[in-house]
Amino acid sequence: MSVTYRDILSAAERIASGVHRTPVLTSNLLNEIAGCELYFKSEHLQKAGAFKARGAVNAVFALSEEELDRGVATHSSGNHGAALARAASLKGASAYIVVPSNARKVKQEAIAGYGGEVILCEPTLSAREARLQQVIEGTGATFIHPYDSPWIIAGQGTAALELVEQVPGLETLVAPVGGGGMLAGSALVCEQTGVTIFGAEPRGADDTYRSFITGERVTSHVPDTICDGLLTTVGEQNFAIIQRLVSDVLLASDTETVEAMRLVWTRIKQLIEPSSAVALAVILANPEVFAGQKVGVMVTGGNVDLEDLPF
Amino acid sequence: MSVTYRDILSAAERIASGVHRTPVLTSNLLNEIAGCELYFKSEHLQKAGAFKARGAVNAVFALSEEELDRGVATHSSGNHGAALARAASLKGASAYIVVPSNARKVKQEAIAGYGGEVILCEPTLSAREARLQQVIEGTGATFIHPYDSPWIIAGQGTAALELVEQVPGLETLVAPVGGGGMLAGSALVCEQTGVTIFGAEPRGADDTYRSFITGERVTSHVPDTICDGLLTTVGEQNFAIIQRLVSDVLLASDTETVEAMRLVWTRIKQLIEPSSAVALAVILANPEVFAGQKVGVMVTGGNVDLEDLPF
Repeated sequence: MSVTYRDILSAAERIASGVHRTPVLTSNLLNEIAGCELYFKSEHLQKAGAFKARGAVNAVFALSEEELDRGVATHSSGNHGAALARAASLKGASAYIVVPSNARKVKQEAIAGYGGEVILCEPTLSAREARLQQVIEGTGATFIHPYDSPWIIAGQGTAALELVEQVPGLETLVAPVGGGGMLAGSALVCEQTGVTIFGAEPRGADDTYRSFITGERVTSHVPDTICDGLLTTVGEQNFAIIQRLVSDVLLASDTETVEAMRLVWTRIKQLIEPSSAVALAVILANPEVFAGQKVGVMVTGGNVDLEDLPF
Repeated sequence: MSVTYRDILSAAERIASGVHRTPVLTSNLLNEIAGCELYFKSEHLQKAGAFKARGAVNAVFALSEEELDRGVATHSSGNHGAALARAASLKGASAYIVVPSNARKVKQEAIAGYGGEVILCEPTLSAREARLQQVIEGTGATFIHPYDSPWIIAGQGTAALELVEQVPGLETLVAPVGGGGMLAGSALVCEQTGVTIFGAEPRGADDTYRSFITGERVTSHVPDTICDGLLTTVGEQNFAIIQRLVSDVLLASDTETVEAMRLVWTRIKQLIEPSSAVALAVILANPEVFAGQKVGVMVTGGNVDLEDLPF
């Protein structure tokens, strides 16, 4: 099944009772600095602190009663794990989340806080997949992929859908890309509404950029960036959409991303995570691309570790 | 002249074009933790990042053309300096801000950023007052006191005025107290609207608490707290109002305040300063006082130094 704009409209209806319609924030000061009109779609104020709530709720709410009885499972070291645990709890379903043993304690606590079962594994890809397979065989739970699934793409796309409703005349949208669920979902909305869309990626995890310019999807790399939500390589279904609909993938260094994050923290007093700030960073690094336009900035999440800040 | 509720109504009209009507934020999660309904009046989203914009605009907008031609002056190591510089710039007036030489660079930059003239002095009370006197004699500028003036009290009171409009049925309000302009202005609104009001003060700067229980205003102390907006002793006019109208002054340790600040940062993703978090800290420390009530929390500002965080 290939995901379409109509799936995003359906997702918006399906998830309405389970997520926030998040606000759009603006700042004259940041507009002056950027030389364009910025509209921050504030998914850091989303349930569980990230847009991941959208895809997770969409995937869980689409399951049958019988599937819900057996629960859901995934692997995640980030926001998807907590989002899926929360979505499952809304339906009284079990959630089994395989987490690498080196994942941050705060992420594990968030999963457990929503009633999810944290299943630790060795921090390797093969250990993670083996453990997940074991869990699924033992429980019959449905695997909800963190990013490369039509349900997830359609769910994440609902944020852009809200944004184009909230900002009439929006011309451009910039969304961060890790696995690519958010960027792909946003791109489908932008195609339908005539908005130009760019991906934003850390230089230290530039697999989508390299995939985009060569046309060959990069499937493994060794990321080196503080954007801990963007470490994964781009998913297959997501990349097909991105390749077709995204104007360009722009890169930012971690230094530029930290500076953008500092601007958002100090000027609009919003606690956003580095993986979100990369979108503003590429806008500030490429003023000629965005000059004078109405630009949406997808702020993907606000889950930061206060004990480990980059300032 | 003694300030009244009517002065706050007049101030609200006077300042409307020069300040934000700030939003009220809520969080189910924090409500569960606190055992009451919390309504955060978000003055960290105010112009210049703090409620001080209200009093400063009220004082400046009330001046005659002739007075504006000569400019305004004050001493400040904190948010009042930037707020006054900004208010003056809205009227094209000069602002002379005497700042102790050990004040944070970020505060000096904020003043200069709004076109104010930063005048450094030795970091003692006598040096500050002497330097301010000199400036006033040299320029004819009008002195705008940081907190102990009817114009300032009336201006700061407009935040509580908005809050009681925004939250019908509000039962209680907690506001931090330093010089006392915000607490006094809020108390006048609460008297009129039947809301119980509490002051919140750091244990390490408890002059208002001690003044309140003895009836004798403490006029000098050696504060020891991270709440750098609450170091000053309570003003004379403010204390008279506080003594008459405030139910109690509650204290929080810096440890409790940092924990409250951490909750607001991580749960509602809002960057508030320690001097603001003390209000939530006293609510969490005294659950029996607030249980089940609709409680307003005056979030006074969000100007933090990211190079010097307490986490």
